[in-house]
Amino acid sequence: MLDPSIRDQLIGIVGKQNFNDSNEAKLVYSYDATPNFQSLPDAVIMPENKNQIQSILKICSEAGVPIVPRGSGTNLSAGTCPTEGGIVLTFNRMNKILEIDEDNLTVTVQPGVITLDLIKAVEAKGLFYPPDPSSMKISTIGGNINECSGGLRGLKYGVTKDYVLGLEIVLSNGDVLRTGGKLAKDVAGYDLNNLFVGSEGTLGVVTEAILKLIPIPETKKTLLALFQDMDAAAKTVSAIIANKIIPATLEFLDQPTCKVVEDFARVGLPTDVNAVLLIEQDGPPEVVERDIKVISAICREGKAVSVKIAQSLEEAEALSTARRSALSALARLKPTTILEDATVPRSKISEMVRAINEIALKYDLRICTFGHAGDGNLHPTCLTDARDTEEMHRVELAFEEIFEKAISLGGTITGEHGVGEMKSPYLAWKIGEEGVAAMKAIKYALDPKGIMNPGKIFAKDTRKRVVL
Amino acid sequence: MLDPSIRDQLIGIVGKQNFNDSNEAKLVYSYDATPNFQSLPDAVIMPENKNQIQSILKICSEAGVPIVPRGSGTNLSAGTCPTEGGIVLTFNRMNKILEIDEDNLTVTVQPGVITLDLIKAVEAKGLFYPPDPSSMKISTIGGNINECSGGLRGLKYGVTKDYVLGLEIVLSNGDVLRTGGKLAKDVAGYDLNNLFVGSEGTLGVVTEAILKLIPIPETKKTLLALFQDMDAAAKTVSAIIANKIIPATLEFLDQPTCKVVEDFARVGLPTDVNAVLLIEQDGPPEVVERDIKVISAICREGKAVSVKIAQSLEEAEALSTARRSALSALARLKPTTILEDATVPRSKISEMVRAINEIALKYDLRICTFGHAGDGNLHPTCLTDARDTEEMHRVELAFEEIFEKAISLGGTITGEHGVGEMKSPYLAWKIGEEGVAAMKAIKYALDPKGIMNPGKIFAKDTRKRVVL
Repeated sequence: MLDPSIRDQLIGIVGKQNFNDSNEAKLVYSYDATPNFQSLPDAVIMPENKNQIQSILKICSEAGVPIVPRGSGTNLSAGTCPTEGGIVLTFNRMNKILEIDEDNLTVTVQPGVITLDLIKAVEAKGLFYPPDPSSMKISTIGGNINECSGGLRGLKYGVTKDYVLGLEIVLSNGDVLRTGGKLAKDVAGYDLNNLFVGSEGTLGVVTEAILKLIPIPETKKTLLALFQDMDAAAKTVSAIIANKIIPATLEFLDQPTCKVVEDFARVGLPTDVNAVLLIEQDGPPEVVERDIKVISAICREGKAVSVKIAQSLEEAEALSTARRSALSALARLKPTTILEDATVPRSKISEMVRAINEIALKYDLRICTFGHAGDGNLHPTCLTDARDTEEMHRVELAFEEIFEKAISLGGTITGEHGVGEMKSPYLAWKIGEEGVAAMKAIKYALDPKGIMNPGKIFAKDTRKRVVL
Repeated sequence: MLDPSIRDQLIGIVGKQNFNDSNEAKLVYSYDATPNFQSLPDAVIMPENKNQIQSILKICSEAGVPIVPRGSGTNLSAGTCPTEGGIVLTFNRMNKILEIDEDNLTVTVQPGVITLDLIKAVEAKGLFYPPDPSSMKISTIGGNINECSGGLRGLKYGVTKDYVLGLEIVLSNGDVLRTGGKLAKDVAGYDLNNLFVGSEGTLGVVTEAILKLIPIPETKKTLLALFQDMDAAAKTVSAIIANKIIPATLEFLDQPTCKVVEDFARVGLPTDVNAVLLIEQDGPPEVVERDIKVISAICREGKAVSVKIAQSLEEAEALSTARRSALSALARLKPTTILEDATVPRSKISEMVRAINEIALKYDLRICTFGHAGDGNLHPTCLTDARDTEEMHRVELAFEEIFEKAISLGGTITGEHGVGEMKSPYLAWKIGEEGVAAMKAIKYALDPKGIMNPGKIFAKDTRKRVVL
């Protein structure tokens, strides 16, 4: 519970209407999109500007009260669960697009802007902000920055960090940093932009961002290739890249995923083949035309049983939207859906998908796999029931094996969801104890009191992934 | 002087033939490409592998002996000058391309590989490594990583950090970190890749790197646009980008630069116009053709007095090479050449160039300006004589004003050369005292003994830029 004098001070900063420690509010903000992680905060606070955040952090730093910055809570690694209580900081009142600069191709935003709103606003000016996490309809840019969100267009266009040019950050001691700028090149000291992007709110609070834009691709085309042989699909992915074509999107869906997505979205996805590749290319019309032709040929050579090109932008859009709805669709089937994002070098996708299927069999679990095949970022998704403790134990063991396999293939435990609380026990598997020690030293350097989103990234003593 | 027992231990690690503390060696490694910074190291050491580097760092850490990692010494901010003595670590024996992975589009290299050798090796396989610092014929990849080198292709393709997927790093305590991997996406903890890229050897020693490759552009075309009005040239740069065309290269040369480059390279550069834009576009032939046509039209509308398209690849190559030789050409004119890289948002180039010219007049100095106009990265270059202390004082004041102006336009003190020792007095101008404090905290976290390239990035008490 919050000390009454701290409570009064916080209310003094933001006003009564922007501070909430009712049981309802605490319950609502006790979890994010990650199943089975829940912990009550002491209060929820809605600051209006950087100065208020400075004051809040100074008070919390002094008093050792945890701060959990939170966008829309679409996080999938329990990164915005208030694990150790404290104050949930939301950005509903800091949700403005401050400037679209067409000369410098930048957009300046507050952290609470919804990702899709930003994308639409810049597209209206012929510009393009590529990072497109599946949650983009509700996720915020601040959340995307804290998680270094990826998305379907990551293969060709990169992820959030590739578009962050500058940040305004409040550190836990109340210091305000301004990193980068509207600059294509800046090497004035360490790259703090990239240190904060993906730091999951553990180093400071992002209060403003300058993002890079690019000209919007002139056109795009979408192709659906169906395979009876999962291996053939994976090999086709490698063959496309080896042919020196980088599609905008190169998504993979296995048969169970296709089936549930089709049940959910009704866009004409096949439900009777073992693997589907959803491929999009964008760019100048001549190039798109040529690339799609070559990709079609490669798919056919790769034993696709069918290759279909979407006949209209609407049809293409429907397919992308269906793919983006995979999590929602899968979540309808069982009480608990655990979506992971083990990632491997793209040449290892086939091996990884095979391993996931074998592990699912071994532990008698239902795991569907889909994801960004082009960049090796897979989403094995387990449909389970958190109330079944025996099954949950098997889920735990299965995902441990999946992470182990990904690492052994040169991969990582998380491609785009972050470590959060959920994957913290496995961080050392990827970066070694030396890596964890180096990261902890950096965390301590910038947040010596440890108030910034404590309990995230770095594991406590437990290895348990699913907290029951 | 090195303690004799330390000397013996270091020789024990690398062998006598790879340790050199002769006066000749110390003199040779006492400076880099930056004028007027010189300081003798205690010895030069040439390790063969990571394990030797671990042992060296452990000994030096224990004894508090500075370590200065050094590639080919083309640094332009005194970043590889052994400011506080100690051991210069060179990578002549760690200069192998370990693997070109055509499935994953990566190349794995040791730090001592020459940049141009790498570029040629991957181009032979139809792949492309875009970062192309002007020094690429002699610079090393390790040096490029430590400086986050840019180059002419930065506008379209980004800089070194955009191509570093993974690093092997030895920390000052001897710990080995392995960051990233052959992975398009990886958010397992803080982004250490990008923290080390551009850290100027102050955080650890890079011993191996996995770099991203992309398919080589199918073709390219080069165009030369001449202007009598400098402002018109700068406005044309903005107009091209505002037209949603991102050229591969968009270089600016002022009249004095053109003149000396032409004297040096004899490629037919005009010497009687006030500003030249050298523009290259690459990609699929249809797109290059179209873009070059549009760019030509924009140049003409922008009052170019002449627009010429290079008639052959050889002619185009000669123009790029000539541009790359600008520093060498300018260096012939006066005993001392100080090349800076103040960088501004691209919409401010015209204002910045005008300010540079006014400042040169005010201080009665000869400053030529050229650079990567497309990304706002200018290279005002002062031709002077270090023996003339009175003039050097004016140089000092002039560059202070140039930095001040760049910052006031939303720019930075360095776009691609690094802070080093030379620009350390100005770091706080860009990132504030809070930023410097945060960076120092990170430095201390990873190098608590302060042995990694001391005296760089962070200023001592002096403000003097040019040490006499």
